[in-house]
Amino acid sequence: MTSQSDIDFSKLFAKIDELKPNFIQRLQKAVEIPSVSGDESLRPQVFKTAEFLKDELTRLGAQDIQLSPLGKQPPQVANPDLELPPIVLSRFGSDPAKKTILVYGHYDVQPASLEDGWNTDPFKLVEKNDVLYGRGSSDDKGPVMGWLNVIEAHNALGLELPVNLITCFEGMEESGSLGLDELIAREAKGYFKGVDAVTISDNYWLGTTKPVLTYGLRGVNYYQISVNGPSADLHSGLFGGIVAEPLNDLVKLLANLADPQGKILIKGIDEQVAPLTEQEDKLYDDIEFDVQVLNDATGSKTALYNDKKSILQHRWRYPSLSIHGIEGAFSEAGAKTVIPAKVKGKFSIRTVPNIESAKLTELVIKHVEQDFAKLNSPNKVHVELIHDGDYWLSDPFNENFTAARKATKKVWNIDPDLTREGGSIPITLTFEKELKTSVLLLPIGRGDDGAHSTNEKLDVSNYIEGVKTQSAYLHYYAQGDK
Amino acid sequence: MTSQSDIDFSKLFAKIDELKPNFIQRLQKAVEIPSVSGDESLRPQVFKTAEFLKDELTRLGAQDIQLSPLGKQPPQVANPDLELPPIVLSRFGSDPAKKTILVYGHYDVQPASLEDGWNTDPFKLVEKNDVLYGRGSSDDKGPVMGWLNVIEAHNALGLELPVNLITCFEGMEESGSLGLDELIAREAKGYFKGVDAVTISDNYWLGTTKPVLTYGLRGVNYYQISVNGPSADLHSGLFGGIVAEPLNDLVKLLANLADPQGKILIKGIDEQVAPLTEQEDKLYDDIEFDVQVLNDATGSKTALYNDKKSILQHRWRYPSLSIHGIEGAFSEAGAKTVIPAKVKGKFSIRTVPNIESAKLTELVIKHVEQDFAKLNSPNKVHVELIHDGDYWLSDPFNENFTAARKATKKVWNIDPDLTREGGSIPITLTFEKELKTSVLLLPIGRGDDGAHSTNEKLDVSNYIEGVKTQSAYLHYYAQGDK
Repeated sequence: MTSQSDIDFSKLFAKIDELKPNFIQRLQKAVEIPSVSGDESLRPQVFKTAEFLKDELTRLGAQDIQLSPLGKQPPQVANPDLELPPIVLSRFGSDPAKKTILVYGHYDVQPASLEDGWNTDPFKLVEKNDVLYGRGSSDDKGPVMGWLNVIEAHNALGLELPVNLITCFEGMEESGSLGLDELIAREAKGYFKGVDAVTISDNYWLGTTKPVLTYGLRGVNYYQISVNGPSADLHSGLFGGIVAEPLNDLVKLLANLADPQGKILIKGIDEQVAPLTEQEDKLYDDIEFDVQVLNDATGSKTALYNDKKSILQHRWRYPSLSIHGIEGAFSEAGAKTVIPAKVKGKFSIRTVPNIESAKLTELVIKHVEQDFAKLNSPNKVHVELIHDGDYWLSDPFNENFTAARKATKKVWNIDPDLTREGGSIPITLTFEKELKTSVLLLPIGRGDDGAHSTNEKLDVSNYIEGVKTQSAYLHYYAQGDK
Repeated sequence: MTSQSDIDFSKLFAKIDELKPNFIQRLQKAVEIPSVSGDESLRPQVFKTAEFLKDELTRLGAQDIQLSPLGKQPPQVANPDLELPPIVLSRFGSDPAKKTILVYGHYDVQPASLEDGWNTDPFKLVEKNDVLYGRGSSDDKGPVMGWLNVIEAHNALGLELPVNLITCFEGMEESGSLGLDELIAREAKGYFKGVDAVTISDNYWLGTTKPVLTYGLRGVNYYQISVNGPSADLHSGLFGGIVAEPLNDLVKLLANLADPQGKILIKGIDEQVAPLTEQEDKLYDDIEFDVQVLNDATGSKTALYNDKKSILQHRWRYPSLSIHGIEGAFSEAGAKTVIPAKVKGKFSIRTVPNIESAKLTELVIKHVEQDFAKLNSPNKVHVELIHDGDYWLSDPFNENFTAARKATKKVWNIDPDLTREGGSIPITLTFEKELKTSVLLLPIGRGDDGAHSTNEKLDVSNYIEGVKTQSAYLHYYAQGDK
């Protein structure tokens, strides 16, 4: 980082500290609306949250607020007559002399109930020991309110936003982001025209004490191996020993996908993985992490590696293969003596640069078909790709990341760790491809916030320092220096 | 078979032919009561069938008719407050100079509905082209009515039964025969005192044209391999590649149980299997069967053997291993990216003489544990026997079978095939052990009757010639010659 004339944030940060009660109250109101997108009976609450956002944005002086409709749910969804919740679009400023930043977040949440083991009502924001508990506090209402807080703080000071800001808040993120891809494609040259950079605050710090910026995500290719034999399930007493059993074939195919240490046994994949350069390897040196964090997260001692670098590199920059289950076989408790007639094994491969999806699928099909041929079985095999989503890798030293790094350093007084994630956030790629801009993942919460789990929380310090970081990021990005 | 002074059945068989309309009407009445033991809402219909039997037996002159109560369902069953249907006990004659035969059958049936694909109402007996269609026609109301028809024919002729006959008809056979074992043990020295032989008519001919007597059943040992890893299911994006996945371990264990040709890979089992003697091998020479029958039954070409002897011997007298499924993994349609934390693989081994259950379990546990040790996995494995049931093998040349063979020859003009079955009928062993008598399986219906399937049927000829066979069997058994 070059040291240049720095920006003075003292007034802005002081105002943010002063407005803390307002900010917490805003989050409180948001958490109180149980906007669970996965529970169709609560769909009206998701719409209510969109209206809440519209009211807040109106009060904050947003222009051109749109609750952009996405139509009805697609037919494959449980209730196809139900309307999808809208995307909340708004803009603050449209000065052609300023850069334009789009901020993305989501206002729907995961299900939650006291019976799941919450200590408090998940849909009341409860503050205890400087921690805010409630569903959505960290995922993702906290970060979304954060952006509104940024504007409130600027308004309170009569301070102009340094950039044009566009909000894009969705209400179906926890349920597959139905309709969002299409909206982004549609608005790329409409509402989103002129966007210079995108910021997504919807992931987490790696640990609990050090802020991070995230520059990479693995992709995922999901495969299914079908083995078909008899025309219907058979009784194992009558047919055991005299027919070739599809499940006996399938377990052999599944057993030869990855070794017990997780190494993928499909030939040709390793060669596609970008080599680890010395420079990249060094990026892992300072990252705060150890095997204990992993063991705590899994509640077990099942880690395949003990050193920080191996763990993080295998989570972020190497492919992995997981077997998820079998469809068509007996899967309940108890003992059923069936010979399943048609079984489908499911597995997925997490992809990384430079694995090409089509090439990978070719290798997978070839591997499984060759394995099956060795079995000399009269059954039939069929291997298919169920879905794929590309990996994402950004340049963590570009203008967008540099602004966020400066902001983080300013607020937290430490350089953020540069992290990647093992999972995928497909919307990241969509923004990058459709808007042809850099996308930054700027997490607000900590690694132990328990998104999707019980007693989800957001530390007050993360919330308030997060507003400062979000604010400073806009200013550094506007300043534009690298 | 020795040829001795044969019995003249001409009057009896003529009377049976004459009573055909009555016999069909009796079966009609029985089929019309939907005594589905597995459907608790139909439980009153099962009781109604017991009352129907009581009325019929009363009219036929039975003594000491008892609807022996079995109490309430055990607590592990869906509705533990529900009464079990009674065992219908009755006796015809108690002459100490005569031998005593116990006949077993069941008056409950499998579920059935038009929506399943029946061409006619399953609970109306429909006669078409000399075939009787209806749920329970073959399994097992036809054979049960058969015994009542035997008595009606004797009564109509004023002919004394040649043996003392005891009926034992149960109403929970299709739902695990709850309570029957206990009743048999209880009545061994009570109602069943003095029983010389037991006959069960509750299986089928091997094919469609040749009658059979059945002298053996395989047993079954059901096993579960649990592999436990993380404390909860994990997201494969976050944890794929850095934890040892229990399902990856489990498929390897399951893959090494049997080879693709069905050969069991667990050491020490083959050595326990009784060697095939030349004499036993010859028993298979005349049996009517070929691979086409097997392929028709499976609706596929998945047979592991093409010759009759190999197929039948691997169904009847060699052990087999079937994998049934996995509990705890993703098992639905679609694509879920979970890493299951605890998975249970289920498999069973069909047992034959002289495999001992406890010895087998020891070998299974040793095999799986050794395999698991090779994986060098941090997960935990646990192998357990879920349930076992012994094989059964009788002497097909004893007095009981000899009487049945003579009867079959008399009625069908052909020596019956001597068959075994791949599945188990646990009650066979219970009768043998508790009453210390020979048990004979004397099937009435054909291999294609579709018991448990749609459009279950019983050919009129099997029903009526079956009554003659059942009758002649009693007479030959009374005559006692070998």
